[in-house]
Parts: sequence; C-alpha cells; structure tokens
Amino acid sequence: MTIKLYELCGADNKMVFSPHCWKIRMALAHKGLSYETESVGFSKVATIEGGEGRRVPVLRDGDEIIEDSYKIALHLEEKYPDSPSLFNGEGGKAMTHFVTAWSQSQLHPVVARLVLIQIYQSLNDEDKDHFRTTREKTFGMTLEDFGATRGASSTDLHKVLTPIEAMLADQPFIGGQSPLYADYVVFGALQWLRIFKGQSLLKKDSKAEAWMNTLLDMYDGEGRNAVMAA
Amino acid sequence: MTIKLYELCGADNKMVFSPHCWKIRMALAHKGLSYETESVGFSKVATIEGGEGRRVPVLRDGDEIIEDSYKIALHLEEKYPDSPSLFNGEGGKAMTHFVTAWSQSQLHPVVARLVLIQIYQSLNDEDKDHFRTTREKTFGMTLEDFGATRGASSTDLHKVLTPIEAMLADQPFIGGQSPLYADYVVFGALQWLRIFKGQSLLKKDSKAEAWMNTLLDMYDGEGRNAVMAA
Repeated sequence: MTIKLYELCGADNKMVFSPHCWKIRMALAHKGLSYETESVGFSKVATIEGGEGRRVPVLRDGDEIIEDSYKIALHLEEKYPDSPSLFNGEGGKAMTHFVTAWSQSQLHPVVARLVLIQIYQSLNDEDKDHFRTTREKTFGMTLEDFGATRGASSTDLHKVLTPIEAMLADQPFIGGQSPLYADYVVFGALQWLRIFKGQSLLKKDSKAEAWMNTLLDMYDGEGRNAVMAA
Repeated sequence: MTIKLYELCGADNKMVFSPHCWKIRMALAHKGLSYETESVGFSKVATIEGGEGRRVPVLRDGDEIIEDSYKIALHLEEKYPDSPSLFNGEGGKAMTHFVTAWSQSQLHPVVARLVLIQIYQSLNDEDKDHFRTTREKTFGMTLEDFGATRGASSTDLHKVLTPIEAMLADQPFIGGQSPLYADYVVFGALQWLRIFKGQSLLKKDSKAEAWMNTLLDMYDGEGRNAVMAA
C-alpha cells in the first residue's frame, strides 16, 4: 500500500520547509519506508484529502488519513513494528511530549522570528495574501513591524539551545546512542531555519552543530539535500 | 542489605533540601525500598564514606557506593528490576538526560537565585563559612550582591516552567500516565524552592501546581512532610 505525505511548500513546490513535515520525512526515513509526496501552499492546506481545517503534515497510509506529526509518528511505530523504533519504549513515547513542548514553546518562537519575512517572500501571490492576513491577525501588527520589533538573533538561538548543548555532553542524540523521533522534533525546527537562511546559524564548533550535521547526512542526506529557499 | 542515603542538611539536620537528594528520595519511594539516611552539612560532604571530593547524594547499597543522582537511579533500576520502573525503557533512560539538562540549565539557575540567601541563613556557622567562600569565588561577588543584582522573581519561575505547563496539557506526568524518574528530576528543584520559601511559588491554578501537589502527596506524603527551613 502506498504512503503519501502531504507537505507545505513555497512558490517552488520542491521547497518544502515546514518543521512538522520534516519531522515526518525523517521518521519515514528512520523506518525505511518509501512514500510519495504532494506539496501544497498555505492556502490549500485546509482542504487536503477533502478535509476542512486540516494542518500539515497529513499522511495517507492505505485507507487511513492521519494528521498531527506526533500521531503520525505513533501510527508509523504501531503499523511498522519490525523497523527501527522511533521511541524505544513507553518512557520514550511519554518524554517525547516534553521534548516537543520545549521545542514548540522555546525554540520555535526564536526560529519563527528569524525566518518570518523569508517565509513570506518565498510564497506565491495567493499564499502571500493568506500568510499575511492570518499572521497579522495573530500578531496584531504588520509582518514588517513584527519582524522589526520582535526579531531574533543567532545569539538568541544559541541561548535557547543550551539544554540541547548540555544534553549532548552526555550522549550523541536525544534518543541516546542513535536518534529517535525526539531528535527529529528538534531537527525539524533547525531544518526550517536552515532552508530559509541557506546556512547553519548554529554556534560554530558547538555540539549542537555537530549533531545537526550528523542528522543532515543520515538516510542518504535526506536533510542535506533539501531544496533551499531562493 | 541496608540502603543508606547521604543527604545535605542545614543547621537542623532534619532539614534536607538538596534537589539532587530529593530526586533520590522520590526514586527510592517509587521503588518501594526502605533505607536509612544520614544528613551532613556542606563542609562534610566531600568526605562522606571516606571519600575525597564527593558530592551529594551518595548511596550505599550493601557494599556498593554510588554517587551522582542519575547513576544512583540507574543502579536502583538495574538492581531492583521487579519494582516499578523509573524509566520505562531505553528511550526513557536516554530522554531523561534531556529533561535533566533542561532542569539544570534553565530551572536551577532561577531557583538558586530565589533561595540563595535563605540557604545561607539555614546553615550552621561552619557551613556558612564554607558556603560563602565557595559561592563567592564562583560568583565573583558577595552573596548579598549576587542576590541583589542577579535575583529572580516568581514571574521568572513561571516563565521558565512554560515547557512543563505545555507538556501537562498532553499528559499528567513527564513519564506519561504515572511519574518516572524524569518527574522527580524537576520535582527536586521545586521541592528545594518550597523548603526555603515555606510555600508554593508556582502559578496559582496552573497545571504545574497541580502536578507538584500530586507528587508531594504520593508515597504517604514523602515530599509534603519535608521539614521546612525555619
């Protein structure tokens, strides 16, 4: 049965950048599963697979349609138990929630501020309108004002990654001796950043930089070969 | 065989406050193990069990002496496999390192700033000298200046607990449906704070407050019954 991953893209439909979609790209590679992809712009996400109000990533696996990156990872874990585990047990499943909560609440806001304007610039006209309207409603100000007043710097990024850097003094991956889904959760946010910046903003010669480079090269360079924003 | 836990105490040797020792108190309770304790002041820690440069907690289990809270937890997990797991698998063991790295690098500095002067005041004269000398060397300023210029507020505490609050929207414990050692890692820091402040500084009616209250009441109120600083 065919697995199909719906992703978010810019005006160039090969430039897929959503951190949540990258989590699942890496999870599928981890499981050694082949799949096809379809990328859609912001204004088309809600109606993927005949849906209403969907959010990416959406995975179709045979007759099943799964939404939400953690639920997709759980689905892959349960449906393909013979390929390498994404969690290494129930404790790992549970603690992935903490890693995700940390990533979403601490790392994502910094990355989002670093890439906000570049995301907008990468979109086609219809998606530009959609992105501007929805984000300006959330922010209560224009994208440009938000970028100017709430921007972030690479120093903010290095600071927010302190727990990752400290953890990497103990072991090479969040998952221990090899990566688990929790690694891809954090990787997704940094890949999102990398695609828009065209380079790593991680601290030079840091453990986090080495960890990221290792993940970028895994699975035949799945992450390294991403199409970058123009 | 007898298990003995060496803890850190104030002038009142029943007032045991080290966050790392509280991790192990909770881990021992989780495992349902009985043990005896001996509490020592700062200036006596290094020479526990004939050691040189030891740090609390130190656990003697029969002929084995184990130092470092994570290593002690691993020891309990391996030696007492029939009692409830502290990690629920290898993924849980690995991700405990991330929870610990987060707690040490983000939560501990805030708590330490909130309780610094109260720690000092709780000690006997010999330990007061030891604490002042070692800390002032680290800070490069007097305890009082550090407290005045690098203090923290309960607002800082609430902000730093954002990932815990977000995670608790998904599940009742870091460990999932019941606590694991990773919960006790964070609990230890907040118990340290509670013992010196005599009350909870957690955000009223927050999920973190409810989680803390649940942990305080577990194991016949092991945490709730702590002797508070005067």
